[in-house]
Amino acid sequence: MCAVVGVINSANAAKTVYYGLFAMQHRGQEASGISASFNHHIKTYKNQGLVSDIFNNEILNSLQGLMAIGHNRYSTAGSKESKDAQPIAANYLLGEISVAHNGNLINKDEVRDHLIKEGAIFHTNMDTENIIHLIARSKENLLKDRILEALNIIKGAYCLLIMSRSKLFAIRDKFGIRPLSIGMLEDGGYIVASESCAFDLVGAKFIRDVRPGEMVIFEEGSDKIESYQIFKECDPRICAFEYIYFSRPDSVVEGKNVYEVRKNLGKTLALKNKIKADMIIPVPDSGVPAALGFSNESKIPFEMAIVRNHYVGRTFIEPTQEMRNLKVKLKLNPMSSVLKDKSVIVIDDSIVRGTTSKKIVELLRQAGAREIHFKIAAPEIKFPDIYGIDTPNKDELISFKSNIEEVRRYIGVDSLEFLEIDELIEGIGRERRYSLVSFDGDYFVK
Amino acid sequence: MCAVVGVINSANAAKTVYYGLFAMQHRGQEASGISASFNHHIKTYKNQGLVSDIFNNEILNSLQGLMAIGHNRYSTAGSKESKDAQPIAANYLLGEISVAHNGNLINKDEVRDHLIKEGAIFHTNMDTENIIHLIARSKENLLKDRILEALNIIKGAYCLLIMSRSKLFAIRDKFGIRPLSIGMLEDGGYIVASESCAFDLVGAKFIRDVRPGEMVIFEEGSDKIESYQIFKECDPRICAFEYIYFSRPDSVVEGKNVYEVRKNLGKTLALKNKIKADMIIPVPDSGVPAALGFSNESKIPFEMAIVRNHYVGRTFIEPTQEMRNLKVKLKLNPMSSVLKDKSVIVIDDSIVRGTTSKKIVELLRQAGAREIHFKIAAPEIKFPDIYGIDTPNKDELISFKSNIEEVRRYIGVDSLEFLEIDELIEGIGRERRYSLVSFDGDYFVK
Amino acid sequence: MCAVVGVINSANAAKTVYYGLFAMQHRGQEASGISASFNHHIKTYKNQGLVSDIFNNEILNSLQGLMAIGHNRYSTAGSKESKDAQPIAANYLLGEISVAHNGNLINKDEVRDHLIKEGAIFHTNMDTENIIHLIARSKENLLKDRILEALNIIKGAYCLLIMSRSKLFAIRDKFGIRPLSIGMLEDGGYIVASESCAFDLVGAKFIRDVRPGEMVIFEEGSDKIESYQIFKECDPRICAFEYIYFSRPDSVVEGKNVYEVRKNLGKTLALKNKIKADMIIPVPDSGVPAALGFSNESKIPFEMAIVRNHYVGRTFIEPTQEMRNLKVKLKLNPMSSVLKDKSVIVIDDSIVRGTTSKKIVELLRQAGAREIHFKIAAPEIKFPDIYGIDTPNKDELISFKSNIEEVRRYIGVDSLEFLEIDELIEGIGRERRYSLVSFDGDYFVK
Amino acid sequence: MCAVVGVINSANAAKTVYYGLFAMQHRGQEASGISASFNHHIKTYKNQGLVSDIFNNEILNSLQGLMAIGHNRYSTAGSKESKDAQPIAANYLLGEISVAHNGNLINKDEVRDHLIKEGAIFHTNMDTENIIHLIARSKENLLKDRILEALNIIKGAYCLLIMSRSKLFAIRDKFGIRPLSIGMLEDGGYIVASESCAFDLVGAKFIRDVRPGEMVIFEEGSDKIESYQIFKECDPRICAFEYIYFSRPDSVVEGKNVYEVRKNLGKTLALKNKIKADMIIPVPDSGVPAALGFSNESKIPFEMAIVRNHYVGRTFIEPTQEMRNLKVKLKLNPMSSVLKDKSVIVIDDSIVRGTTSKKIVELLRQAGAREIHFKIAAPEIKFPDIYGIDTPNKDELISFKSNIEEVRRYIGVDSLEFLEIDELIEGIGRERRYSLVSFDGDYFVK
Repeated sequence: MCAVVGVINSANAAKTVYYGLFAMQHRGQEASGISASFNHHIKTYKNQGLVSDIFNNEILNSLQGLMAIGHNRYSTAGSKESKDAQPIAANYLLGEISVAHNGNLINKDEVRDHLIKEGAIFHTNMDTENIIHLIARSKENLLKDRILEALNIIKGAYCLLIMSRSKLFAIRDKFGIRPLSIGMLEDGGYIVASESCAFDLVGAKFIRDVRPGEMVIFEEGSDKIESYQIFKECDPRICAFEYIYFSRPDSVVEGKNVYEVRKNLGKTLALKNKIKADMIIPVPDSGVPAALGFSNESKIPFEMAIVRNHYVGRTFIEPTQEMRNLKVKLKLNPMSSVLKDKSVIVIDDSIVRGTTSKKIVELLRQAGAREIHFKIAAPEIKFPDIYGIDTPNKDELISFKSNIEEVRRYIGVDSLEFLEIDELIEGIGRERRYSLVSFDGDYFVK
Repeated sequence: MCAVVGVINSANAAKTVYYGLFAMQHRGQEASGISASFNHHIKTYKNQGLVSDIFNNEILNSLQGLMAIGHNRYSTAGSKESKDAQPIAANYLLGEISVAHNGNLINKDEVRDHLIKEGAIFHTNMDTENIIHLIARSKENLLKDRILEALNIIKGAYCLLIMSRSKLFAIRDKFGIRPLSIGMLEDGGYIVASESCAFDLVGAKFIRDVRPGEMVIFEEGSDKIESYQIFKECDPRICAFEYIYFSRPDSVVEGKNVYEVRKNLGKTLALKNKIKADMIIPVPDSGVPAALGFSNESKIPFEMAIVRNHYVGRTFIEPTQEMRNLKVKLKLNPMSSVLKDKSVIVIDDSIVRGTTSKKIVELLRQAGAREIHFKIAAPEIKFPDIYGIDTPNKDELISFKSNIEEVRRYIGVDSLEFLEIDELIEGIGRERRYSLVSFDGDYFVK
Repeated sequence: MCAVVGVINSANAAKTVYYGLFAMQHRGQEASGISASFNHHIKTYKNQGLVSDIFNNEILNSLQGLMAIGHNRYSTAGSKESKDAQPIAANYLLGEISVAHNGNLINKDEVRDHLIKEGAIFHTNMDTENIIHLIARSKENLLKDRILEALNIIKGAYCLLIMSRSKLFAIRDKFGIRPLSIGMLEDGGYIVASESCAFDLVGAKFIRDVRPGEMVIFEEGSDKIESYQIFKECDPRICAFEYIYFSRPDSVVEGKNVYEVRKNLGKTLALKNKIKADMIIPVPDSGVPAALGFSNESKIPFEMAIVRNHYVGRTFIEPTQEMRNLKVKLKLNPMSSVLKDKSVIVIDDSIVRGTTSKKIVELLRQAGAREIHFKIAAPEIKFPDIYGIDTPNKDELISFKSNIEEVRRYIGVDSLEFLEIDELIEGIGRERRYSLVSFDGDYFVK
Repeated sequence: MCAVVGVINSANAAKTVYYGLFAMQHRGQEASGISASFNHHIKTYKNQGLVSDIFNNEILNSLQGLMAIGHNRYSTAGSKESKDAQPIAANYLLGEISVAHNGNLINKDEVRDHLIKEGAIFHTNMDTENIIHLIARSKENLLKDRILEALNIIKGAYCLLIMSRSKLFAIRDKFGIRPLSIGMLEDGGYIVASESCAFDLVGAKFIRDVRPGEMVIFEEGSDKIESYQIFKECDPRICAFEYIYFSRPDSVVEGKNVYEVRKNLGKTLALKNKIKADMIIPVPDSGVPAALGFSNESKIPFEMAIVRNHYVGRTFIEPTQEMRNLKVKLKLNPMSSVLKDKSVIVIDDSIVRGTTSKKIVELLRQAGAREIHFKIAAPEIKFPDIYGIDTPNKDELISFKSNIEEVRRYIGVDSLEFLEIDELIEGIGRERRYSLVSFDGDYFVK
């Protein structure tokens, strides 16, 4: 996933970027960073950990200036070594730039190998470094044209923020797989962010999405927005997972409120449901809207029968021998007072490996649930998503190697049902196309 | 509030205590500590902050032994100085003891003054220190009798865990205001904790509550539980706030599941409701069960229209000038997609000062809500609770100085309704009495 | 050893105390703390580690007020548990006090046992806590009289600083074993410190020593100094080790510059020397002045042939197998360029266990020294010092169980010579008596 | 300055490198890092601060393998931004390399500009990055030949350690300005280090210096040393400052013990001295050997009349208004007991800006010195050293703009004398040439 945010023409841009990253913490908890441009110098601070642990007032005050970009990292490409945090700042012929990148380049190894053959050196494992090299090696005079040249070489799903000392470039790939939106701050500055929930926190108004294949250029000191449709033949397909579980429910992705979409998916599950049950229970938090939609449609009561503990520890304390299923229990606690002897329909957003679902079912059984029916508000995940999500290899995807009945037996439920791909599309809306690789294996990015 | 937990006769007792504290983090986020008894020496580690930030494997491994007690601190008594963390360990005539205390002593100043007049010195601002002094000054030969003598002097609401080098004492005041339960671990050891949710995490089974006025004594190496009804004339009144917002919804307090009680309170609100509205929305997380109960009864749809961000920062980053209501927005974001032009009933668990409610209403209005009706799943808070909750002075309680209509105008809603005290009692259950001081001003602890 | 420092009637008293502690870091590196009195409240901050690691500007700015006391801890009494840092602040009948104590009470166990029998509780292992209890238990009306009562009970070598909310008491035991001096700051405030080197750093002028058996009282807002000779029958004996190795060479102890005394002791060694050698080399840093005195007298050239590395690590990195004598080598490196085939006289300040001396000799031999003659600028240490120094048990003192020839063989030198006790006295000055317990076993404090 | 150290074919190579860096901490306190090669992967850990603060056992244990290189950074080239630490590791066509570099490239801006024009990107401000780029861009097949190509482009004073996954390259520029020596560890592994004091600590034996213009290649698993004289026309000139103040006195630089050289320089000062004085005092620590040499020759007594405090704080605590000259006093304290009414000759190693000397003189005057004569054991510093020392701009060098009499008046001494350049050469030894740019302005590196 990852999150990017950029701010221009706003006092204390880095602080606004900080709050944008904070609002989008769910998109990446591994590392975060902010670059700010001040007095013709770009300064970067980045580290491992949560946004609120990395930054403090002193650090943010040292990141002065009217322009800044930031990044939350969720380890997709690149290893988990500590050097792999973004934005990446570098000096090149036209001066300083800093780049924040959300997505995954499918030809990154070829590009990297080619660059290395030409003498490039790499300091990190991140494909973002490819983009900077390509910009630096271009013979074009203008940064804009250098970026264009680079973008014609890389392939994949990406949203890019590139900050020079006076300009901010916001770019979305021609498939528009990852979301990127523009907002206006109360002091007239602009903000660009992966998710609109970042706008709400900083008091910005949504203006519009960056279009698939569009490059938007903001300039320090000017309120003009330049726009270039840099890819003429676009095939817009926002990633369906943004609706299924990436985005916060309060975000609006491509004009659709995520919470409403999830409720719709739950409603679709309800429409085809044949099970009678005492209650509908979500796996919190992401299963909540679909469970509500299901309950509203089916009139089966909704119950928050699994309680989630939101405190998280940085160090995992090795439990004593007796504590089984501890990692799941640290987050989720099913209430036997509610579940005892009940027949329940559990709503979750996905089954990836199946291991967590299996443990949740064990805990529900221990809590006394009599019948457990699992309904997934998404289709079976049969293929790895190589466009930016950290899905495991094919072989680890339980639905790649097993049919529904086998999965049902593995996780130990009385019945199991998924959405059909077409139902997913219907639930989000038929007016546009979606990236559905995990479900249909159609790797359309070429 | 505060939380206490004690473990005896279990390998790595301190680790189990750690997980118990982790599960009860909501009862106190200011400071935490663990004392463990090993090899005839009690070792204590405590600090400011969250349980998961204070402890790591190295520290827990240094707290060896089969007995340990722990404490999460929520600053009620005592200032917020860093020295005020528990448990408090001390040497006295019979050796070493460590004490963890949840509650508030109403005669702490008199007792402290008296002790000080007799030459005692105090290192902290916590009333727990009184108890240790009284135990140390007793002329009794047995720790048990010394504790009894001390308990006859102190007055108030308390749950006490006292660990000597070989015994663990668990004591509940005669009113039973704060909860305290006994569980059994899978390896046969005992666990005592403020809330039953701690048992769930560590895989312990609930055995029974410690009774009001009871002292339970556990001994290292023995599976016997000694019990003494040390106060003969008890007047059991569990604190109503345990059901309203202290306890986790998955805890069972005095035999009642908190989630079910809250749903009941919401149902009661629904039964007397006269408002027509498009949706019921909770102020998350504590308002969720009551909102569900309300929705089930009224058939008005339940919507999670306010999204809560559970990430929290340790440092508050001063926002730029433009970010208004930031502190509330960092946690709560109302969705305009859901709320626009809608008439909504908002369910919350309480109104204390009114300032937060006012800000939530402002954000709901900005999100486009047309009509806002506030329903509180508890009566008006008119009196400070001196038995263990950090309620402000009378003058800061908005319902002390203002009637409902004045509060309604202040927070800016179209209508405002509370539960009556009798409805609260009905909702929890008439079979027992409750501590209701905040609502009725009956300071019964004397 | 330990160091104490107090400041009164000076702006930012805690900062001046900080610098005083910094100057006296050599007297205790284990823990440090500062108490400051402001607005009728005493605030204390203390921790493990070096002064400069514990405090920062933020902490010092929070320790406001015109009065402060501080302490550097060298673990003599008390274990090395983290709670054992000073000053110790407490509340008692007359309000708040904070106590910093340098020294060792010989009857601390009896006093503690007696106090515990009377119901006192102890939170630390430090004998300082005895003093606070005795003050708190006194029936006198005035703090001064309470202190006097306490001092009549405790026995031992001590310098005490006691701060109430408006007064500062500086007390020295009747033997005056540990030094304590009064200085005046440039803004007219007073400073009391263990060593005069603290005055130099903060720009204070030495006024006079606190006399053995004297209590000096300073009051906030007044420039008056009250003085009471609280012990009439004094037997002043400053500890000879203050001259031999405790104090910094630039300190003036009881009117004598430590550097000059050490040079004198070296001169005495030279006067009785019969060895012909190529050079005199000190074990740095404490052996330097005596080696200079020796060289000046004997005309044998002085060489800094052992180089000391002053960087110190907080974590000891376990060496690879091959690195022998690493702990000594981390500090001391003999130069073979200077030592090769040379006959050398090495000057050190003492031999305690003999193990370090043995390793130094090994390194000197490896560096090529042909003949090694050890001269110690002090007599043989045959008895534990129980008055404030961390000398080991009798059995670990090499000179307790071995005669000079045996020690010589053990450490592996060609000759070994100590000062006689009388030569030590002559070297410091015959005009006063000294505490010489480590040399003569005369435990005069009773 | 900076320090480099490399170890090959030794178990726990990173630990030995750690101790080497520790021994050479004086050459750079700003940042440190270690790269270790294990299992065909180079892992690097680096940070700001002292060696002993950056590394702990856990980090060193994670840097496994039989090869490692390390670096202590003293900020010469590059700003003080936190990213500027070495070694720099990178991926390029032949795999992974890591580079540690001590020195300063005089054509770094031209090379960097050229590289940037060709599309290179720079992540740091360090000229070391140039070298990696040149290696990566070479068309040679072997790393050795690529390094040669790079070295033919860069100009300046440098010692280079380059580690690939199986080899260690140690290179010294053709002028041999910075020292670099080879030693053998007890387990048969090799160590290469800037200063021989590193060998002493880890128990290694000095084998030989790397020759000016030489490239030495070590290979994992082989005890062969390959040597190439890569520059045929060498003009060896070790930097005179290595003797004057860079190196530790116990190091042997180009066959000369630094301590002995410094004593020689002091002797030279004594030979031309015409002042009668009561004592010779060094500015510790670097002035000590010259002062000893002076004293031995002149027979004027040597006194350690200025005491140095070796504790250093990481945070500078802002002093109260009254504390003047605090920064100098934190380190140096002149003893009035020794200095009062005395005529003194002070020996220091250099005068750069003159500000510190002026403050030392003020403190000596306050301590009562009657006459103060300054003797500098080096010539006047009239020119910036661009070959690796952090000397200020010409305009800040007091001897650039002022003659000796003016400097004397500025620092406030009764007389001031320097060594002549020829006396310096004589003092070190006429058998070789020296880099003397700071004294004679002959910038011979072209």
